[in-house]
Amino acid sequence: MGKGIIAVDLGGTQIRTARFDHELNLLQRERTLTAAEEGPKPVIQRLKQYIAKVLPPSLGDVAGIGFSSPGPLNPMTGVIVAPPNLPGWHDVPLADIIRSEFGLPVFIGNDANVAALAEASKGVAQGHRHVVYITVSTGIGAGMICDGRLLLGREGLAAEFGHIPIIVEGDKVSSVELEAAGPAIARRALDALRAGRPSPLSELLAEGNGSLDAKAVAMAARAGDQLATEIFAHAGRIIGLGIVSILHLFNPEVVVLGGGVTKAGDLLFGPIHDAIAQHVLDDSYLKDLKIAAAALGDDVALVGAAALVATEGGHLDISELDRLF
Amino acid sequence: MGKGIIAVDLGGTQIRTARFDHELNLLQRERTLTAAEEGPKPVIQRLKQYIAKVLPPSLGDVAGIGFSSPGPLNPMTGVIVAPPNLPGWHDVPLADIIRSEFGLPVFIGNDANVAALAEASKGVAQGHRHVVYITVSTGIGAGMICDGRLLLGREGLAAEFGHIPIIVEGDKVSSVELEAAGPAIARRALDALRAGRPSPLSELLAEGNGSLDAKAVAMAARAGDQLATEIFAHAGRIIGLGIVSILHLFNPEVVVLGGGVTKAGDLLFGPIHDAIAQHVLDDSYLKDLKIAAAALGDDVALVGAAALVATEGGHLDISELDRLF
Repeated sequence: MGKGIIAVDLGGTQIRTARFDHELNLLQRERTLTAAEEGPKPVIQRLKQYIAKVLPPSLGDVAGIGFSSPGPLNPMTGVIVAPPNLPGWHDVPLADIIRSEFGLPVFIGNDANVAALAEASKGVAQGHRHVVYITVSTGIGAGMICDGRLLLGREGLAAEFGHIPIIVEGDKVSSVELEAAGPAIARRALDALRAGRPSPLSELLAEGNGSLDAKAVAMAARAGDQLATEIFAHAGRIIGLGIVSILHLFNPEVVVLGGGVTKAGDLLFGPIHDAIAQHVLDDSYLKDLKIAAAALGDDVALVGAAALVATEGGHLDISELDRLF
Repeated sequence: MGKGIIAVDLGGTQIRTARFDHELNLLQRERTLTAAEEGPKPVIQRLKQYIAKVLPPSLGDVAGIGFSSPGPLNPMTGVIVAPPNLPGWHDVPLADIIRSEFGLPVFIGNDANVAALAEASKGVAQGHRHVVYITVSTGIGAGMICDGRLLLGREGLAAEFGHIPIIVEGDKVSSVELEAAGPAIARRALDALRAGRPSPLSELLAEGNGSLDAKAVAMAARAGDQLATEIFAHAGRIIGLGIVSILHLFNPEVVVLGGGVTKAGDLLFGPIHDAIAQHVLDDSYLKDLKIAAAALGDDVALVGAAALVATEGGHLDISELDRLF
């Protein structure tokens, strides 16, 4: 029988740990809340406790421990650099700390890269070797699988889809994230309302005590509001143009879209598809191309963290997954 | 002793063939002109002749035949699709034709991908595993080496750097190529002159019988002309922003710039460096990053075609080059 894998989902508000078998089937799962403002020390203490809870009786039966963590982080050294939603974490050598505690191999990946591995191993992109995973949420991130291997780049800084410069107006340069992430959608709505554009969104704004989020804009768009629909059309068009870059640069088989903002569904997917159809260089890029919503939901980070161990940090080909143990 | 490699540079105006040893040292080289308007049949006949000229006495001493060809082509099937500068070539199964003639393995790559392999094997990017090669000429193409392997994508359509969409001024979707390739530089100069902008370029235009090229614009810029300098500043800025996308997506160690337009030197490289410095997400992308002019000159296609054989079409890791034969 193959060895088990320990997976950890380190987030700003909770820690989840799990044990998987060598075929990435979930065997046991634990969960605890963290107060991000606590800083790293107590969180690391709790990490160790909750890893211990999912360990099998003998450590010899474990292939390694994989982490999904917010970035920026260095997957080569296992150092968490300074994630905005882990305040107080600065250059924390998490891999070393966990390795010396348990004496097991430790692999750390940023959440978008780990999600790409998850969707390619067990999700909507299973069986494919050229996969792009894009998450649209408070930021826009991505993970790329190129010919079966996770794209890391020289120092693990690759796949920052959100930071593709996309608009040049005079001296100003904007990026996919600045135009299309959740906060950009909310900001564009606020700007339009402040400029006097009539919209039922002004009622939602009053209910929200002067604040609005992308979810509220999506609600208004679904109810037929013109302003909200235009804002999603813009966000979708920009994401679609970013995907055109990705198609031309990576020629993938599957583009997976995840993250909170993609729950807007056709409001976003419609303009994404339109922009791709309109601006792709050649139909050969679209042949057999699958553009799909993420399939794994809440478990994506745990499954991906386990796949990260199985591929030794994303360095091994995903087709090796079955043969590893 | 290792096996030799046959390399072919198939261009619109000439065919070059060469024999390399297993360490990619050039042993013999031949060259003949082709008239592109001849169509594929006589050109293929000449290809066979000039390959025969560089073959060693025993075919058992040859590892394979590698081609650098203008795209679009399919590197998986070895079919030349429809290159603009090979008129009459439509879906020509070149790999099959050459394989059945000589009974040797045949690998075909587009010129930009092949040049990337060349610069990473024997040129300015030698010894590096994360390499981007960009060529700025009548078009803008690229080749990427990701963690030691040529990036091909699902059907070999990857690395089309020139076709990154960028929205420039207003709502119009343009691309790196449409803003910064040689014809774009010439067109911007013509448009400005026709709009009445004073510039010594109008004299060059008269000398050129109403036509201008990027080389003339570069000459004028070097002589201090404001219009010509602005046009190169725009082209360099757009290429620089495209490189910012590449840094964020691929996190490379080396960016190699080749092609005729890059002979403009600092006129282009200055604004490229400025745009990168101004718009890169984080200095960590610039740490130890080398941005360099291509080193291999006219031999780049032959060296790369030989490297294509040594890496079995770009599928093997470039670090295997020494151990293959």
